[in-house]
Amino acid sequence: MSTTPTVWRSHSGAAAGRVPLPAATGLHRVVIVGGGFGGLEAARGLSGAPVSICLVDQRNHHIFQPLLYQVATASLATSEIAWPIRAILRNRPEITTLLATVVGIDAEAHEVKLDGGQTVPYDTLVLATGARHAYFGHDDWEPVAPGLKTIEDATTVRRRILLAFERAEREADPARRRALLTFVVVGAGPTGVELAGTIAELARDTLPRDFRNIDTQEARVLLIEAGPRVLAGYPDDLSDYARRSLEALGVEVELGRAVSACSDEGVVYGERTLPAKTIIWAAGVMASPAAEWLGAPADRAGRLLVEPDLTVPGHPDIFAVGDTAMVAGPDGKPVPGIAPAAKQGGRYVAAVIKARLGGAKAPPPFRYRHQGSLAQIGKHRAVIDFGWIKLRGALAWWIWGIAHIYFLISVRTRLAVAISWLWIHARNQRAARLITQGGDEDRDQARR
Amino acid sequence: MSTTPTVWRSHSGAAAGRVPLPAATGLHRVVIVGGGFGGLEAARGLSGAPVSICLVDQRNHHIFQPLLYQVATASLATSEIAWPIRAILRNRPEITTLLATVVGIDAEAHEVKLDGGQTVPYDTLVLATGARHAYFGHDDWEPVAPGLKTIEDATTVRRRILLAFERAEREADPARRRALLTFVVVGAGPTGVELAGTIAELARDTLPRDFRNIDTQEARVLLIEAGPRVLAGYPDDLSDYARRSLEALGVEVELGRAVSACSDEGVVYGERTLPAKTIIWAAGVMASPAAEWLGAPADRAGRLLVEPDLTVPGHPDIFAVGDTAMVAGPDGKPVPGIAPAAKQGGRYVAAVIKARLGGAKAPPPFRYRHQGSLAQIGKHRAVIDFGWIKLRGALAWWIWGIAHIYFLISVRTRLAVAISWLWIHARNQRAARLITQGGDEDRDQARR
Repeated sequence: MSTTPTVWRSHSGAAAGRVPLPAATGLHRVVIVGGGFGGLEAARGLSGAPVSICLVDQRNHHIFQPLLYQVATASLATSEIAWPIRAILRNRPEITTLLATVVGIDAEAHEVKLDGGQTVPYDTLVLATGARHAYFGHDDWEPVAPGLKTIEDATTVRRRILLAFERAEREADPARRRALLTFVVVGAGPTGVELAGTIAELARDTLPRDFRNIDTQEARVLLIEAGPRVLAGYPDDLSDYARRSLEALGVEVELGRAVSACSDEGVVYGERTLPAKTIIWAAGVMASPAAEWLGAPADRAGRLLVEPDLTVPGHPDIFAVGDTAMVAGPDGKPVPGIAPAAKQGGRYVAAVIKARLGGAKAPPPFRYRHQGSLAQIGKHRAVIDFGWIKLRGALAWWIWGIAHIYFLISVRTRLAVAISWLWIHARNQRAARLITQGGDEDRDQARR
Repeated sequence: MSTTPTVWRSHSGAAAGRVPLPAATGLHRVVIVGGGFGGLEAARGLSGAPVSICLVDQRNHHIFQPLLYQVATASLATSEIAWPIRAILRNRPEITTLLATVVGIDAEAHEVKLDGGQTVPYDTLVLATGARHAYFGHDDWEPVAPGLKTIEDATTVRRRILLAFERAEREADPARRRALLTFVVVGAGPTGVELAGTIAELARDTLPRDFRNIDTQEARVLLIEAGPRVLAGYPDDLSDYARRSLEALGVEVELGRAVSACSDEGVVYGERTLPAKTIIWAAGVMASPAAEWLGAPADRAGRLLVEPDLTVPGHPDIFAVGDTAMVAGPDGKPVPGIAPAAKQGGRYVAAVIKARLGGAKAPPPFRYRHQGSLAQIGKHRAVIDFGWIKLRGALAWWIWGIAHIYFLISVRTRLAVAISWLWIHARNQRAARLITQGGDEDRDQARR
């Protein structure tokens, strides 16, 4: 018997062939790929419909992505923003959840192809596979400048941030110490702004008393943006307030400068070379490979172009929602890649499927309703744009917090996150500051 | 600039030479290696003493090891049982905490040697480096049968347990499915008993409604022990009660059978060969390499033999406490490798150092006081032996819970763990069921 631990990849070893799903007894089979906001909302919306559902995700958990940056900055623990998908769906006996990686789709045979050779048949397919980071042709930057889309991204970034301080504490050489205490965030959208602000707070408020050789308040945090503004999609005055808030926290905001090189030594932006040991990428996303699976038209970011009813052209039985799809909003601009948009898409698709099965008239075309934009910069500083009203400062910050807690999946997690935040608020103590490393040799290669 | 991320190992890159510690201004320099129970208690005991302290650990966090099995069985999250060491010590300005791996000791030069070539000078050295797993000469079993000493061990075991159920859900072949649903714990000490009982509860109470193709209640959990009893160090009647409780949970207890082979296919024990995809090792520990660093005499488990005052023979300036040391208890048997023993040792060493510095008489020889043995088997089932009284059943279980919460490090964590446990108790829902994989390519090689 060999001792090579080959069995721990979720996609190895399962026999090829159709997945042994419970007998569908003639029900319409819906397969949902992706257990994120779009996929889960579609599953929810199909409650009570005469369907059997198979939901497939390459991870076993749903992540509350808007708070992923808080795991990355050691403000929340991973378990506070992630829940097992099959536990979320446990009260839906008609839903089978599978941990698997989709490797392709056979649209003619109406089958989804999984790792290991298994296939899952469908009558209707919903693609809600989200996005991953884009490096504008510089994929070699990814190892030194990780993005923030998965739990593993978040713990990797967290580890790097905390290790940088640890190494600086031991570093005798002043130049190397300065590089260790220099943190660069690339991209000033909401994620970049939230990251930069929180790292600054970590260095300024949480860590100073923990170190003896270094003054963590001397850490430099830079937010580098190629465009002319932070929070480009927000109204000018809120964008301006965000920039001033970042600067008040000590963040150096560099606008109008694109990053032209990233390495483990630092970054080159504009004409400057900056030694920095920690770089985080928040500058671009592209869709999952769904369009490639179908050989269907996609935009420059890889998003599937969809019909007004969110189906893929030529495939009325295949829907795409969320970051996977390019949907035109009411103002002609693409619907933003945010959680509410994915949820609205998922809800809509469920309504269309239900209407079809019930013989009812098809709902009108999908119409995205922008409910508001929120971004937190730091303690007591946030911006909210509800369209009819704009808020900033401490009031916006409290509303931001309540809204995020409200949208968390379970009562228990709301309680846990509320306690964590109150603790940070009262004492500046961040409890989730663990540096952990991967245990198994095996790695799930199909993470992306 | 290369893009190879070489900088993320905590021990690479720091310049060789003495660590730049804050100027000691003539104070007696104490170096404590290890931030576990023994090391932290020594640090606490030295409060107010005229010393400067440097505490070194290869991880940035202190782990509450008695509850590590709960992370491994997805009942608690990692952040609920681990805290950053430097945060624990933040209010002690005379203590510098370093994240570093000790690679040796130069007892002549009175220096501790760290990874990367740095050294730390000491006047007094306290070794509290703990233990790691022992495989009785079969180190090749380690990849397939991980132990439970670190956070990474716990998340590895958790991942394997949860992945086994996930893969079984997709597995069409009945024999392979059975092997995936067979879990083996080797070693029936407290850790093994707690693991086996909790996995059985997970399969029986938490998971059944989450799966559709498999009946998780059909999972087999085996606890294999070479000796004649579970909980060998406990009174006979408590040991018996523990065994019957395990069996009531559906655990198959195999006594008097030693494991002779482990592989990713299963185990061989006694004369049986059992296909099992998940094996957890709880059968033996050995000390950290402290004895090797000193070239000092050690017992068969690698533990340093120490004088009655816990110093290493021939090195009155070097102390060893906890699992690192072999200390004879009042009954002549070795002091057990449990948290209270390490804490008593740490406290004692601090008292000795203080007495020396104050010119006072040396305290009497270290005398271990056994306060009691506790083990939890499952919900409402625990055993406690206080010596003068023995408890079992639900009362023992409540006391077990309260005692463990009491000894947790911080108020916030006590609250978090209490909530998690109440949730499990009320709803059988375990929230910490995340399958995560390592992010960075780099691995901290010196973990063991």
